[in-house]
Amino acid sequence: MDQIVWIALICGAIGVAYSLFTAGWVFKQDAGNARMQEISSYVAEGAMAYLTRQYKVVAIIAIILFIVLLLTLGSMPAIGFIVGLVGSGLAGFLGMKVSVNANVRVAAAASKSLPDAMDVAFRGGSVTGIVVTGLALLGVAGFFMLAKSSDPDPHKIFSALVGLGFGSSLMSVFARVGGGIYTKAADVGADLVGKVEADLPEDDPRNAGVIADNVGDNVGDCAGMAADLYETYTVTIVAAMLLGSTIYGGIDKPAFYLPLFVGGVAIIASIIGTFFVRLSKSQAEKDLYIMGALYKGLAVAGILAAIAFYFVAQKLPLGPPKGGGYEISAINVFWMAVLGLVLTGLIVVITEYFTGMYGPVKYVSKASSTGHGTNIIAGLAIGMMSTVLPVIVLAVSILIGYGMGGGFSGVQGGTGTGLYGIAITVVSMLSMTGMVVAIDSYGPITDNAGGIAEMAELSDEVRNRTDPLDAVGNTTKAVTKGYAIGSAALAALVLFAEYTRAIEELSGKAMSFDLSNPKIIVGLLIGGIIPYFFAALCMLAVGKAAGAIVDEVRRQFREIAGLKEGLPGVKAEYGKCVDLVTAAAQREMVIPSLLPVAIPLAVAFIPGLGREALGGALIGSIVVGLFLAIAMTTGGATWDNAKKYIEEGNLGGKGSEAHKAAVTGDTVGDPYKDTAGPALNPVIKVVNMVALLVVPFVM
Amino acid sequence: MDQIVWIALICGAIGVAYSLFTAGWVFKQDAGNARMQEISSYVAEGAMAYLTRQYKVVAIIAIILFIVLLLTLGSMPAIGFIVGLVGSGLAGFLGMKVSVNANVRVAAAASKSLPDAMDVAFRGGSVTGIVVTGLALLGVAGFFMLAKSSDPDPHKIFSALVGLGFGSSLMSVFARVGGGIYTKAADVGADLVGKVEADLPEDDPRNAGVIADNVGDNVGDCAGMAADLYETYTVTIVAAMLLGSTIYGGIDKPAFYLPLFVGGVAIIASIIGTFFVRLSKSQAEKDLYIMGALYKGLAVAGILAAIAFYFVAQKLPLGPPKGGGYEISAINVFWMAVLGLVLTGLIVVITEYFTGMYGPVKYVSKASSTGHGTNIIAGLAIGMMSTVLPVIVLAVSILIGYGMGGGFSGVQGGTGTGLYGIAITVVSMLSMTGMVVAIDSYGPITDNAGGIAEMAELSDEVRNRTDPLDAVGNTTKAVTKGYAIGSAALAALVLFAEYTRAIEELSGKAMSFDLSNPKIIVGLLIGGIIPYFFAALCMLAVGKAAGAIVDEVRRQFREIAGLKEGLPGVKAEYGKCVDLVTAAAQREMVIPSLLPVAIPLAVAFIPGLGREALGGALIGSIVVGLFLAIAMTTGGATWDNAKKYIEEGNLGGKGSEAHKAAVTGDTVGDPYKDTAGPALNPVIKVVNMVALLVVPFVM
Repeated sequence: MDQIVWIALICGAIGVAYSLFTAGWVFKQDAGNARMQEISSYVAEGAMAYLTRQYKVVAIIAIILFIVLLLTLGSMPAIGFIVGLVGSGLAGFLGMKVSVNANVRVAAAASKSLPDAMDVAFRGGSVTGIVVTGLALLGVAGFFMLAKSSDPDPHKIFSALVGLGFGSSLMSVFARVGGGIYTKAADVGADLVGKVEADLPEDDPRNAGVIADNVGDNVGDCAGMAADLYETYTVTIVAAMLLGSTIYGGIDKPAFYLPLFVGGVAIIASIIGTFFVRLSKSQAEKDLYIMGALYKGLAVAGILAAIAFYFVAQKLPLGPPKGGGYEISAINVFWMAVLGLVLTGLIVVITEYFTGMYGPVKYVSKASSTGHGTNIIAGLAIGMMSTVLPVIVLAVSILIGYGMGGGFSGVQGGTGTGLYGIAITVVSMLSMTGMVVAIDSYGPITDNAGGIAEMAELSDEVRNRTDPLDAVGNTTKAVTKGYAIGSAALAALVLFAEYTRAIEELSGKAMSFDLSNPKIIVGLLIGGIIPYFFAALCMLAVGKAAGAIVDEVRRQFREIAGLKEGLPGVKAEYGKCVDLVTAAAQREMVIPSLLPVAIPLAVAFIPGLGREALGGALIGSIVVGLFLAIAMTTGGATWDNAKKYIEEGNLGGKGSEAHKAAVTGDTVGDPYKDTAGPALNPVIKVVNMVALLVVPFVM
Repeated sequence: MDQIVWIALICGAIGVAYSLFTAGWVFKQDAGNARMQEISSYVAEGAMAYLTRQYKVVAIIAIILFIVLLLTLGSMPAIGFIVGLVGSGLAGFLGMKVSVNANVRVAAAASKSLPDAMDVAFRGGSVTGIVVTGLALLGVAGFFMLAKSSDPDPHKIFSALVGLGFGSSLMSVFARVGGGIYTKAADVGADLVGKVEADLPEDDPRNAGVIADNVGDNVGDCAGMAADLYETYTVTIVAAMLLGSTIYGGIDKPAFYLPLFVGGVAIIASIIGTFFVRLSKSQAEKDLYIMGALYKGLAVAGILAAIAFYFVAQKLPLGPPKGGGYEISAINVFWMAVLGLVLTGLIVVITEYFTGMYGPVKYVSKASSTGHGTNIIAGLAIGMMSTVLPVIVLAVSILIGYGMGGGFSGVQGGTGTGLYGIAITVVSMLSMTGMVVAIDSYGPITDNAGGIAEMAELSDEVRNRTDPLDAVGNTTKAVTKGYAIGSAALAALVLFAEYTRAIEELSGKAMSFDLSNPKIIVGLLIGGIIPYFFAALCMLAVGKAAGAIVDEVRRQFREIAGLKEGLPGVKAEYGKCVDLVTAAAQREMVIPSLLPVAIPLAVAFIPGLGREALGGALIGSIVVGLFLAIAMTTGGATWDNAKKYIEEGNLGGKGSEAHKAAVTGDTVGDPYKDTAGPALNPVIKVVNMVALLVVPFVM
């Protein structure tokens, strides 16, 4: 079985190598004129300054938690925690690094043609996408080897891997929350004082907040997203491995290694897929084809992965579970993996319907023509409505995965192998992470490219080429979030199964989480509090931090003579705003990020609650959080594209009353889709990881 | 035990008699001048026309369901269904009837003094409050006697009472949804075209939509609310009785009758409490005292009820559960009842904090000064935040009630009596319904009185007296909704216990709803879809119906010469708008209202789902729905009072940019707090009732 770990390591390394090679290609592209490079360097410096400070804050908290873990659970879980944390942070750092260098090159390429811009942007995005999965796979496989060589006791390896998952989840919460507060505080703050008060156009260099706004796109949409998906990928693989070991009885069984194998081959499929994303000159004339080009890459990656999974399943027969019983056939393993790929496809298509230029976006646009209030009502309604289909799709997938795994067979051991079937489905779903992140990442890169084009006063033609790319980016960003939160629902299910089994193993008796037990209901309710409390804190934090930016921009207009009038040689102090929002995001990020650690600990140790209520809280956080997260991320993207739809000249176009109402909707959607909503995914995972870590102490 | 049924019947009759007597007093008050009476008569006619049509639509659906119930479950459940339906409808009708007659008299009384206005308004409100509980108690006790005399088999009585609950819940959904769509479509539609387009002041008689708007307050806030609370009260008592019979083994046990006893004495306590709500002249000078006066009545009713509960508990010892074991002592019954009263008090205080003129309202007001977007972000954040404390309070109450009922005692039968402890807590909580509804109902009455004063061109003094009463009304309306949905969470728990036991009894073996079973998780997810789907449909329906009003008012301005200019003798065709919104509300109400019937049926009968998934769906709907409902109803009230806070002259006052933003927030809050949010309470109950009804068919 070591062979498979090596395959995973090699595939991960190939992914990293591909990313480095592609990054080299991106860096070699034309970086535009001096003015463009100057602006880009401001953005790059700001982003770097932010990440440095964020990582310092996280480091302090990490050291404390490292010591706690070391004293309570021993060295390997503590080391795993650091490995996961650093891995997620590194993924975020690399995502940001590529993005701040690619943006200016996309702006330069857009001066040539739309396909050129698309090419540079997508290559840049694919660096992030593939490096996230490559690093994650290296992290899991490598750390597993390390843990195993340190102590081959399966229990020790189990808790070491949980430590790894916890570290990556926690880093990801900080990255999503900090980055999300940063990007939206800068965006909302700069808009409020710039557009509304001082009547400046978007990205006007006189507005001291604009650089911070552009920095925000990089630290939120790139660094935060990359850290998040690193976490999602890592935790899912770890959860599936652990479940495989529990169900099949040990870490020497094929079920433990199958997730690594699936992840490994899918990276290669994703790399190949990236080469199929290309916009021909003829296609570029109809912007319809942008999404089509992305779909093509995803479809190629998915089909290749499916073919590979067929051979993987043949190569690695699962055999009977611990104690004998239901054997999942190789062909069923294959179908479960296909189910995961189909699930990915369905979530993409559903999200595109709700956020692309179709019925829902047009509906919200139309509602804007009767005012701000009706725009918001329509957006909220669409957001809630957008939860229905994804949840049905997830529910059906759970039943099919469980059924194909033997869950309904009635054969001995079938309920266990059925759960493993769900695990394989979600691993297969997440095996497309590289490709999904690649498709997502190109969005913020083009968004930034558009900003640079504006500030460097390039021709309108350039902006007209980056804008359609950016609009599709709104959809692909929403897709990634829906994908991440959807997979979180499945992964949490697997983690819950692990939680139950861990308790049963330690206590030696069957554990029941029956809904008839009021403790379970209380747990469900408390679990539901987590996403609501967390989302409320995030929204309030954005409001507070945005207020600080408003005050600073106002101060500069007041105190710097000639700034408002745009006299030559007078420059805004961009750095002040960057520092300010950096500090504010840092300050506001800590409490919401620690909420998913503190609440499960409280539930675990408050007398009268304990392990049953904690089990309820795990499920409560995922069920309540899933709906909230989908409603927020999809609804936010719908608002954003409704604004874009009007800006394309519909319903009165830019400057009309409908447009003003649509801007309001977009402002509301900002913290919905970029701060609170996407952060709910790692929040749920942190809750689950904390629960798994405290198991030995709640017996 | 028949004695207790008679006590309940007598107390219910006293309640109805008190209401008739008080209504007589209200009707004898000065009804103002001819103009006021004319306006009031328009409103009354419109409201009557609406209810008549709504009841016709419901009657058609009811006949179909009656036949289905008759053919599947027999005559008594079908008759119970009709009794519950008619009872809830009657409560709504009476609530509306009192309100449309009290409004003009409050306007007349407000010409004299604030305490006079308060007195007439609160007396009017107390008619609705007491009649709701009186009728509900008469319905339950009377129908129980009928069912028992028809067939004393406990199983038959059980399903007859479930039929009763189902009827009242279904009527209540229709009343809440239809009334909610009506009131908010008229409100939003009339505002959009009147205030925004034609620049008319609120309640301007040239706006053809104003009468419909005022009708809406009566059919939504009065008729809808009364039907809802009738349902809440009925279902809770029925659920507690059923559980008492199951746990204690039969309908001849004290536990079966205790809920009726508690309900009966609390009506008397509530009647006495109403006499303590009075505003002295000196208090009237500080508007702070309005809420204080209401609190006084509630406190008196609560304390008297607590004293009475002490003797009730002594008088009716529960004895051991079926099969022997844990006996709940009389003093513990008393404390569980006190817990229910304390819970009522806490929910009132928490809701008041979030919706009264305190921190959260001021925060949203302040956020309005930076624009529409920040107002909405702040309101959404506060709405989400407002879920935290009520849910914690509910969770703690569940644990305490369960514990005092012996749930943690480890003694045989303790888990059953513990559940009964929760049931007593929620019955005691809901025993305050009469007083809570009285406090709520006076709000829409004063709201309407203000509208009549405006249209009849009474002096500003009158409006200045009705306005502070109305602002407190926003808070008390939110309190009632929080109270209803909070009790729904507890009642649903009791109903779930009944569901489990009904299945166990029919199948003869233990039933487990373990979270480790993927079917349960799928059920939770599908259950969560119900509130989101339902709320989205309600929000969309309000948008659609409001659009129809906008078109009609525009048409009248276009086609009726001299209307817009306000030429003497030219009148708007109010009736057209009333008809239009009546028809629209009717049309839009059917699909959302049938959702909570259709989804559980689908879950019950789709292969692969069935009774386990249905159990999960019950809990999923309540957990997800609870958060959504609190966030919507409290958030909506916060927006409304933030607008009122600015209108009091803060942050620039009326006409300022902050005020415009606050109006946007109020518009968004309207369907949140008056359509989707409050209707979630009966929706959850319908889901539960349908599940109980299909039990025999999912075995």
